[in-house]
Amino acid sequence: MKVRSEKITFDETLSLQCGKSLPGFELMVETYGELNAQKNNAILVCHAFSGSHHAAGLDEGSGKTGWWDQMIGAGKTVDTDKYFVVSLNNLGGCHGSSGPASINAETNDPYGALFPEVTVLDWVKSQKLLAEKLGIDCWEMVAGGSLGGMQALQWAITYPEAIKKAGVIAASAKITTQNIALNEVAREIIRKDENFHDGNYLVQNTSPKQGLKEARMLGHITYLSESSMGKRFGRNLQEPETKVDSSINYEVENYLQYKGEQFADSFDANSYILMTKAMDSFDPAETCGGDLVESLKGIQAKLLITSFDSDWLFPKEHGLEIQVAAMKAGLKSSYLECAGEHGHDSFLFHQEHYARSFKNFLENNE
Amino acid sequence: MKVRSEKITFDETLSLQCGKSLPGFELMVETYGELNAQKNNAILVCHAFSGSHHAAGLDEGSGKTGWWDQMIGAGKTVDTDKYFVVSLNNLGGCHGSSGPASINAETNDPYGALFPEVTVLDWVKSQKLLAEKLGIDCWEMVAGGSLGGMQALQWAITYPEAIKKAGVIAASAKITTQNIALNEVAREIIRKDENFHDGNYLVQNTSPKQGLKEARMLGHITYLSESSMGKRFGRNLQEPETKVDSSINYEVENYLQYKGEQFADSFDANSYILMTKAMDSFDPAETCGGDLVESLKGIQAKLLITSFDSDWLFPKEHGLEIQVAAMKAGLKSSYLECAGEHGHDSFLFHQEHYARSFKNFLENNE
Repeated sequence: MKVRSEKITFDETLSLQCGKSLPGFELMVETYGELNAQKNNAILVCHAFSGSHHAAGLDEGSGKTGWWDQMIGAGKTVDTDKYFVVSLNNLGGCHGSSGPASINAETNDPYGALFPEVTVLDWVKSQKLLAEKLGIDCWEMVAGGSLGGMQALQWAITYPEAIKKAGVIAASAKITTQNIALNEVAREIIRKDENFHDGNYLVQNTSPKQGLKEARMLGHITYLSESSMGKRFGRNLQEPETKVDSSINYEVENYLQYKGEQFADSFDANSYILMTKAMDSFDPAETCGGDLVESLKGIQAKLLITSFDSDWLFPKEHGLEIQVAAMKAGLKSSYLECAGEHGHDSFLFHQEHYARSFKNFLENNE
Repeated sequence: MKVRSEKITFDETLSLQCGKSLPGFELMVETYGELNAQKNNAILVCHAFSGSHHAAGLDEGSGKTGWWDQMIGAGKTVDTDKYFVVSLNNLGGCHGSSGPASINAETNDPYGALFPEVTVLDWVKSQKLLAEKLGIDCWEMVAGGSLGGMQALQWAITYPEAIKKAGVIAASAKITTQNIALNEVAREIIRKDENFHDGNYLVQNTSPKQGLKEARMLGHITYLSESSMGKRFGRNLQEPETKVDSSINYEVENYLQYKGEQFADSFDANSYILMTKAMDSFDPAETCGGDLVESLKGIQAKLLITSFDSDWLFPKEHGLEIQVAAMKAGLKSSYLECAGEHGHDSFLFHQEHYARSFKNFLENNE
């Protein structure tokens, strides 16, 4: 599989939904496979909340496998011998694209809290500029899980002629009050970390790592299923000599502590807040007075809506709501409920039924 | 309704499950109604995680109504014209009973982190001493919701001849890995608050209020149902002039901030940690090699197990597990699934089906 990583600079001013604009920006992009001469084999994959441009293959620097590596690669569900797959770090992220940790040309300091609010629609607009730069008029497919699935749906709405298929996976047309509430707890934890400094921690040479760790511990629970946590850890007690903290009793506590710690070392707190706010505010029906059917009517792409039975963050009702609206809007749309043992995170894992349906959707051009 | 509040001192040394002991202790007790001459109309109600001795009536000092006031009172489900109801603040709590904020006679400072770990079994043992002090040989019923229901079940196991009925409501025979994980996030948030000082914040004249607030915000979400939050707040935006924090967008965020703040002003951080640890460790089957049926076999009390359909913290599977084990153990046990719109907190609210079944269970002595 041919992999290319590149930071691409855009000189265009990007007007954002919040009313502010970015006078040029950078996107960190990774591509897999090769664009064919007709430029009609391109697939855009959009990352979830804490993902990055590194979707497939092994990154030798970090030793990390891409987040959708089980699905993308030579001979895999999304076959890179056949398709040209484009992945990017979203605007506002912290893996190379312009975001709160980037230098603000006006101040020569990191943006910090001054980085503007970015929405799913803003991401899609920036991705459209990327498509133009790559010479791609129409994506064969735009797909993603969770917040990535929201981007795929927004693509189909905003650029109906530039996308043939949308894979809207483990996603939602708008998140619930409970989802917003959980995001707000995470944000409050981060904002009130003593090292947050109202978002301007980088100029203070510090980082609210403890808050990020706690926010991630909470988030992590919501991404897994109750039963997978039960199967893996049960009520097993942690061996004393391997406790990361003396106050720990159970294995699951140790695991969460470790996962949280690891995440806090590699993620930016302002990006965490920005990404969760983007998730909260996603609601394409809003511009149609709350009528989702109406908001979908202009879509020309075929949709594949997928939910997982163990997902309690965006349970299947979220997927079904989109599917019912798509049917009422007269779209070509299929709904798939998959058994997935990994809760919300199930979309990341190869699983027979899920992968086969995904491949059929992608390759069937009737 | 006759209400009495009293702090009762116990000179007995209480040996705790953790191996430590308390050389005497105090319990803050509130009673409703009057004990009859035969002393056979007494009901013990056990509070949930953040409850107190104040279960019914209006406390004029605080202006607060008791946590189970919808169920307990003259002419109510638990009729105080007929029954003598005893409620107490559990050991380790922060509403008047001995706990981490009490003075440690050995140091003349608040116990803080030195207050020993207390379990559900320890609470039940201290409650048995209370019963003896009140001259009650056998409770007509012991009942409670959530962690309170666990105490009711433990009572039936530990003192089979001293309890005729157990109301095990919105409870669990052992909590799940996910429950433990959520508790650990709350504890981590509190422990790492800059004002926690390893639990010895009182001698530093401070309190980890921000951590407590965040922990409660998270807890609060788990006590409510997704649909009740949705109905009440939806995705409504908060009016700018009433935002408690400028970074808030939605009404539900404002509500959680307010609720968390309020709680942090009235609860002790060490008690929070102690109570959640007691919840984590509750597992009466453990002494029988994990065999719940075996652990229940000595029970002589009649059981009423109640779960609520909107409870996602301890969903009905938890109640059913106890009921199935009780049936296999040959006990007199009924299981009731109630429609409750308030999620886990549903047990606090009067609701026709729930209240009627509860009353029938209490008053039917066939």
